[in-house]
Amino acid sequence: MALTGTRKRLNEIIFGTDSPAGKNFDVFLIWAILLSVALVLFASVESLWVRFGETFYVLEWFFTGLFTVEYLLRIYCARDRREYVTSFYGIVDLLAILPSYLALIFTGATYLMVIRLLRVLRIFRVLKLVRYLRDANLLVRSLWQARRRILVFYTSVLVICIIFGSVMFIVEGPRHGFTSIPKSIYWTIVTITTVGFGDITPHTPLGQAIASMTMLIGYSIIAVPTGIVTAELAHELGREKQLARCHNCGKSGHDADAEYCKQCGYRLEDFEEPADDDP
Amino acid sequence: MALTGTRKRLNEIIFGTDSPAGKNFDVFLIWAILLSVALVLFASVESLWVRFGETFYVLEWFFTGLFTVEYLLRIYCARDRREYVTSFYGIVDLLAILPSYLALIFTGATYLMVIRLLRVLRIFRVLKLVRYLRDANLLVRSLWQARRRILVFYTSVLVICIIFGSVMFIVEGPRHGFTSIPKSIYWTIVTITTVGFGDITPHTPLGQAIASMTMLIGYSIIAVPTGIVTAELAHELGREKQLARCHNCGKSGHDADAEYCKQCGYRLEDFEEPADDDP
Amino acid sequence: MALTGTRKRLNEIIFGTDSPAGKNFDVFLIWAILLSVALVLFASVESLWVRFGETFYVLEWFFTGLFTVEYLLRIYCARDRREYVTSFYGIVDLLAILPSYLALIFTGATYLMVIRLLRVLRIFRVLKLVRYLRDANLLVRSLWQARRRILVFYTSVLVICIIFGSVMFIVEGPRHGFTSIPKSIYWTIVTITTVGFGDITPHTPLGQAIASMTMLIGYSIIAVPTGIVTAELAHELGREKQLARCHNCGKSGHDADAEYCKQCGYRLEDFEEPADDDP
Amino acid sequence: MALTGTRKRLNEIIFGTDSPAGKNFDVFLIWAILLSVALVLFASVESLWVRFGETFYVLEWFFTGLFTVEYLLRIYCARDRREYVTSFYGIVDLLAILPSYLALIFTGATYLMVIRLLRVLRIFRVLKLVRYLRDANLLVRSLWQARRRILVFYTSVLVICIIFGSVMFIVEGPRHGFTSIPKSIYWTIVTITTVGFGDITPHTPLGQAIASMTMLIGYSIIAVPTGIVTAELAHELGREKQLARCHNCGKSGHDADAEYCKQCGYRLEDFEEPADDDP
Repeated sequence: MALTGTRKRLNEIIFGTDSPAGKNFDVFLIWAILLSVALVLFASVESLWVRFGETFYVLEWFFTGLFTVEYLLRIYCARDRREYVTSFYGIVDLLAILPSYLALIFTGATYLMVIRLLRVLRIFRVLKLVRYLRDANLLVRSLWQARRRILVFYTSVLVICIIFGSVMFIVEGPRHGFTSIPKSIYWTIVTITTVGFGDITPHTPLGQAIASMTMLIGYSIIAVPTGIVTAELAHELGREKQLARCHNCGKSGHDADAEYCKQCGYRLEDFEEPADDDP
Repeated sequence: MALTGTRKRLNEIIFGTDSPAGKNFDVFLIWAILLSVALVLFASVESLWVRFGETFYVLEWFFTGLFTVEYLLRIYCARDRREYVTSFYGIVDLLAILPSYLALIFTGATYLMVIRLLRVLRIFRVLKLVRYLRDANLLVRSLWQARRRILVFYTSVLVICIIFGSVMFIVEGPRHGFTSIPKSIYWTIVTITTVGFGDITPHTPLGQAIASMTMLIGYSIIAVPTGIVTAELAHELGREKQLARCHNCGKSGHDADAEYCKQCGYRLEDFEEPADDDP
Repeated sequence: MALTGTRKRLNEIIFGTDSPAGKNFDVFLIWAILLSVALVLFASVESLWVRFGETFYVLEWFFTGLFTVEYLLRIYCARDRREYVTSFYGIVDLLAILPSYLALIFTGATYLMVIRLLRVLRIFRVLKLVRYLRDANLLVRSLWQARRRILVFYTSVLVICIIFGSVMFIVEGPRHGFTSIPKSIYWTIVTITTVGFGDITPHTPLGQAIASMTMLIGYSIIAVPTGIVTAELAHELGREKQLARCHNCGKSGHDADAEYCKQCGYRLEDFEEPADDDP
Repeated sequence: MALTGTRKRLNEIIFGTDSPAGKNFDVFLIWAILLSVALVLFASVESLWVRFGETFYVLEWFFTGLFTVEYLLRIYCARDRREYVTSFYGIVDLLAILPSYLALIFTGATYLMVIRLLRVLRIFRVLKLVRYLRDANLLVRSLWQARRRILVFYTSVLVICIIFGSVMFIVEGPRHGFTSIPKSIYWTIVTITTVGFGDITPHTPLGQAIASMTMLIGYSIIAVPTGIVTAELAHELGREKQLARCHNCGKSGHDADAEYCKQCGYRLEDFEEPADDDP
């Protein structure tokens, strides 16, 4: 459906990024989002809340009102309303204002407003940071290519954690802080990921020996996701270069380590990505 | 020996995965295993045990009875009984029911029932998750190829830990928690793997200097297994592609970074692995 | 402007590194810098300050005087005074003496004198450690090539930390040490980087479950910068070899894994880097 | 000098590994070493010392006597006595017995006897574990090739630690456990290596912000040694294959990813390393 009149104009400003008005609107919005998130962060500090509580409260409702109006306008001027409401950004836009209203009923919901941060993802589109987006795409694609390997890896880690957690529960027992198997599994995850809070620690020699084994296993296991991601990333980096087209003559199919176009000698560093539309 | 009558039918249901009955049996079994493991986990939480102890007890014996009947049926209808009983799954099946009976004699044995989790490995076979299995194989093969390097690495780490542990015992001594050399070695492992519980920490300036050295060594050493695994994984990934056969024309011997069959142009992403029977 | 007389002679000694006098001056300066930094470190230990406070005070002003004279001489004999004062080293040279004078007004400023350490970067130039510089360049260039990917990565990590931090604040609350969202974010960073101080730890089962998720995410995420750096480093290492010129016959364009010159058979290990002037 | 009579026979037994007697002697020696090290470890546990102290004392002098006799025999029957005494193993053999005698004068020296562990390195030679040695060589060579890059890396890390340590000392101060700059540097190393003991933690918001920065820097920096080692290891792995000779026909110069000899089709997996004598 082609939009006309006010709706068309609003659509250009709110959804578009090409016209000066559309760009200004987006930059303004991003600042509003960042400020409202900062507001939530600072409002959670008790000493600040005691002093500026009222100001925080007023500002909070100012931003909620602003984003509510924006959300309604977006629905009003969207090319396809149903599509917008059910899209990723549509849901995020709704989630960004819901907590404020929910907080009138449930306390605590206010803090969910940091979800607003996700809206900042729009920044990438707005500022035409194609380069940054491409690099993000490369990372996401590498992780996506490796998804099955990562799933197998996490399943193995979980099974190891459950078994070691149970063994530690039997060996150390509630006397030394391993009060239940789920808590022992929590401890095993803390240990195998080399975080090591130290809130629960083994006290018996046998428990310390098993803990040492867990850590050394974790040491080796930490290498696996790195290996997976590196292998995929190296592969993707190579592929990206091969698919690249020279800016000067349009020649593609260069070697993965080529620095200059093999047809015209033009520097390839700033090549364009052929397809930017994949997730 | 060819099976006949009831034994043959039972064999198809219990060991087979192709017939609808065999598939349903396996899916039912996996849910029973996951539920019984969850039961063990929750039964270890004291507050839950106080409230639902009796229910847990009844359910526990229900699952034990179920798995005992299943184990006996498996022996009954196995093609080769001796082979099944001594196979990996045969032993795991036995270990999955033993703890319940042992718990009648020794307390604590109940918790060993998480070994049942290993039975879930069957899921891979059942759901024909060939893809996932192949990725698991790739990881296992990479680790297996690197086994000698990993062994050399662990031996070096252990020698370093014993020497540093002894030095820390002399420097810090029992006054600061380093009560014996084995405990100092435990501390060194905690430190060199960058876990850092903080239950034992150096207090003398010299001890802190040596601890700093240990950490910086650990920092560099953590890179070695990663390097080993990455190098092997990259190699295996390349080899897998080269051995792959095109789904369309059967052509193999493609380049490690090939995306399409070089003979017929068919996409290679979903290629079959030629040999699935290696560990 | 060509320098003459004393200024020219001073310039050769102070800025030059080729004449014996220039070399000796630089070596003397480096020792003075290292000693003055060590002085600051030891002066901060209270037990040492109590005993040697007066000596430290005298030595401190001796070094400050020395570096002040050196700074004034450098300005006096610089080829282009404005250029020197505004250059990186010029600013560092000023920052190295300022804290001592500021300490007369503000206490605490003395400790900023460790900035003197940055002056030691000169050591690379002085001792003609071209090899080491080249390796440093390689590392810096790899990181620089990967700058956009690293930025995307850090942005994602920060967004994850803010969201998880807020969730933990809601789940655990001030009772368990998560007194504000900024503090919860601090805890999330401590956890996701696998540092795990243990000064704040989750106490509720839900909090521990979310913490486990955070750690497992961190586990996977820690692989990303490694993958990025490794891929770039491998690429840079290969390029360096290809650009290398043989010492014997000057032939360049060797394979990335070549050990000997393909034209004259001369060992390539100690090849010269063609361009040393890039950052 | 050619040995004759008893000296020759003893030399074959003690230094040789080819004759059955020589092999048995070495295996016996390795068990003696491992037992004597275990003895030192267990003797440091107070509860065991209280009960078995006298037995430990007698055994300790038994092993010391044994190794003293062995050391004297080695000197007696060495082909070149001066060479043996000043060689790596000669010094280790002396260091292995010295602590026991020193302990008669200084207490504490007994614990240095874990140095005996280094003697176990002989195991590699004895059991002809050529394969394992080759893998160890590969790791050592990779680290050696990367030595300059690792040195540059450690220098940078140290400079970062000194600067951040000083800043944290100023920000947090002695009130929060940062009692001196050296201690702050210790804390920075604990944090940047992601060990995170938690014995000293920042308490001011500014300190926690700087700590977060330190951790995120450490996160990125941890990738650098991994990248260095991986790149070198991949390079060494490739070179090893290229230098390998086929067992069947002796052909060398195969591709880095070759699985079979390109001349005779013989499997290359178990190829011999051409030069085993490099460090």
